[in-house]
Amino acid sequence: MIAPMLEAPTVLQRCEDLARCTEEPGRITRRFATPALARARDLVAGWMREAGLEPRLDAVGNLIGRREESGQTLLLGSHLDTVRDGGRYDGALGVIVALAVAERVAQRELPFALEVAAFADEEGARFDTAFLGSALLAGCVNSRWLERRDRDGVRLADALDAWGGDSSGLDVPPRRDLLGYLEVHIEQGPVLEEADVAVGVVESIAGQIRASVTFTGTAAHAGTTPMGARRDALTAAAEWIGAVERVGRETAGLVATVGEVEVEPGAANVVPGSAAVSLDVRHADDDTRHAAVERLRALATAAGAARGVEVVWAQAHETASVPCDPRLTARLAGCAGTVTGVEVPRLCSGAGHDAVMLAKVTPVGMLFVRCAGGISHHPAEAVAEEDVGVGIEVAASLVEELARERV
Amino acid sequence: MIAPMLEAPTVLQRCEDLARCTEEPGRITRRFATPALARARDLVAGWMREAGLEPRLDAVGNLIGRREESGQTLLLGSHLDTVRDGGRYDGALGVIVALAVAERVAQRELPFALEVAAFADEEGARFDTAFLGSALLAGCVNSRWLERRDRDGVRLADALDAWGGDSSGLDVPPRRDLLGYLEVHIEQGPVLEEADVAVGVVESIAGQIRASVTFTGTAAHAGTTPMGARRDALTAAAEWIGAVERVGRETAGLVATVGEVEVEPGAANVVPGSAAVSLDVRHADDDTRHAAVERLRALATAAGAARGVEVVWAQAHETASVPCDPRLTARLAGCAGTVTGVEVPRLCSGAGHDAVMLAKVTPVGMLFVRCAGGISHHPAEAVAEEDVGVGIEVAASLVEELARERV
Repeated sequence: MIAPMLEAPTVLQRCEDLARCTEEPGRITRRFATPALARARDLVAGWMREAGLEPRLDAVGNLIGRREESGQTLLLGSHLDTVRDGGRYDGALGVIVALAVAERVAQRELPFALEVAAFADEEGARFDTAFLGSALLAGCVNSRWLERRDRDGVRLADALDAWGGDSSGLDVPPRRDLLGYLEVHIEQGPVLEEADVAVGVVESIAGQIRASVTFTGTAAHAGTTPMGARRDALTAAAEWIGAVERVGRETAGLVATVGEVEVEPGAANVVPGSAAVSLDVRHADDDTRHAAVERLRALATAAGAARGVEVVWAQAHETASVPCDPRLTARLAGCAGTVTGVEVPRLCSGAGHDAVMLAKVTPVGMLFVRCAGGISHHPAEAVAEEDVGVGIEVAASLVEELARERV
Repeated sequence: MIAPMLEAPTVLQRCEDLARCTEEPGRITRRFATPALARARDLVAGWMREAGLEPRLDAVGNLIGRREESGQTLLLGSHLDTVRDGGRYDGALGVIVALAVAERVAQRELPFALEVAAFADEEGARFDTAFLGSALLAGCVNSRWLERRDRDGVRLADALDAWGGDSSGLDVPPRRDLLGYLEVHIEQGPVLEEADVAVGVVESIAGQIRASVTFTGTAAHAGTTPMGARRDALTAAAEWIGAVERVGRETAGLVATVGEVEVEPGAANVVPGSAAVSLDVRHADDDTRHAAVERLRALATAAGAARGVEVVWAQAHETASVPCDPRLTARLAGCAGTVTGVEVPRLCSGAGHDAVMLAKVTPVGMLFVRCAGGISHHPAEAVAEEDVGVGIEVAASLVEELARERV
């Protein structure tokens, strides 16, 4: 067995190598169906062969390395694409750690086939898709996505076909051969750093609602309109933004965010006539989330009514909470406890992951690795080499445990 | 004497004629040193001659019509320029009513010279100047304004010289021959409409402070950053926007407004890292305004401190309150009471006017005419013909009263 302290530097170096595959010089931008992503995929294909895996591309451009065995398949992996101006580790770390695990068990007989997936589109940064890469494995590619266009007007189907994919081959049945899916990912939040632990296990991926709330009053002259005669859209919105924070704080495990504000007409000397704000609410428990959102709807209406301001609520999208597999999660927590010597935190992931799609067809488990300052989707993303070593060790332990059990 | 009911339709028709002098078809946009403003000025020059006034242009392009008499000069007037996409009456009404008054007294001997001014730049919509037209009469043109450039990169001095003005002739002494300045203007607010009175007299023009307040926290993932770990710049700003409204409501006569909000990075799924908001505070009494602004500064700091958010306060500009002349205002109120049969409201003007500049060199009086819905700086600006008749009658009464007294 190779000591983790020797594997982790290789993993970090490979993430660095991948970071140089980018659409934008000086930034890390690697979106779906771009030459930059193809270059990253080529690097990973080479490393797959080194790990004893046979690489193949599927219709959507996912790179999957397989070690053949009869019976079911254990899938490890994550995604290779990034947001615009993203970091080195979100996605990439999970792919490269999976390769390290495959190398670790390369000389060992396994009672199942092993696959490492490098998904082609998780972030949806180019076509605003949701887990397009892993959706193919779940038989869930939305055919309407094919007509989507990027900012340059390029159709998704055309981009995919020009990139070596097959837009006519996306309507496939879900995979039924999987015995489980394990994904390692940076936490993207501050919980592990605060708890001073290298890794944590994910119990569920939060359900989410996105809405746009528009407050409409009357634009008026800031100098000549007495306070009592105003229908100020922004003060109504501001009261409600405070309520979003308060409800978020009062509800354990809830995160509630207003990230966008558009004020019209938006001049210093004009009382705002309209204020459109975004809402993002997430929680592990869908009922808790629904109750919080209903409360926020009522509070928006009240904040408007107090000022003669009309409130229109437009829900943009909603996704249900996805639980990780309880048995796989318990095993993962057991392995993490053995490796770290402490009981590791159990978290709800506020961000979505490819595990959301894989959960439709197989038990999923997720391991989070501590990241610096909780920062992700940013060039400042950072992980400690030691924590990466722990991540490899935990994931490898789980694979070895599953192998022992099945033999 | 011509009955006001006959003069008012002419005034409204002339405002309509001026509205057709515009830089932008379908809108009313008549900014400083534009061909549109020159066309409007030509129309007014013709009407000046009909009213027995001799028109002249000064160095900044103000059009001034004069009826000669030895001794001092009574000045009536307002401005001819508009904001972009403005209304028919802000400024123009005061010029045309002044002409109606000049016509009314045309056959009558006066013990003073009479001038009607059509100022070339009150709104500052092109070069962000402050009362450039009337500043010339007060000897207060800021020489640094000459280097300002409009959106197309044109220097103010070049625009003025190309338009028939004289940028080398703006450094002149203040006029010392004025016995008073009277300006009629639409109210731009809802007070007269609510009081159900055609006109009101202005006691003072509010002092004003403009500031930009920037809240800086840390941008973070909206899904993965627990509420307790956030430094949300927008929730801090929102708490403070509520405080601005509250302080405005609690302080009699104060108006306090946040009209602009810029959130960074401004994405629905990112906790805002910064929020920059504008502040506009006005009051007739400078001490009251200062006290309110100090309170708001402390509240901004507190809203930031509660969230680990830094607050930077940048004051953009401040103007002191300008009182109208008490004796002229009392006379104007007396005339208005006689014409309307009621005691008319005494208002503080929240908007600035050319009277701010003229007050530096002569006693000023202002009469507000009720406008529909308090709307100004908008194509929907509207005044009632009957109210315009009352405005003419009150202004003419004052001129006649001043004439009787001086004879």
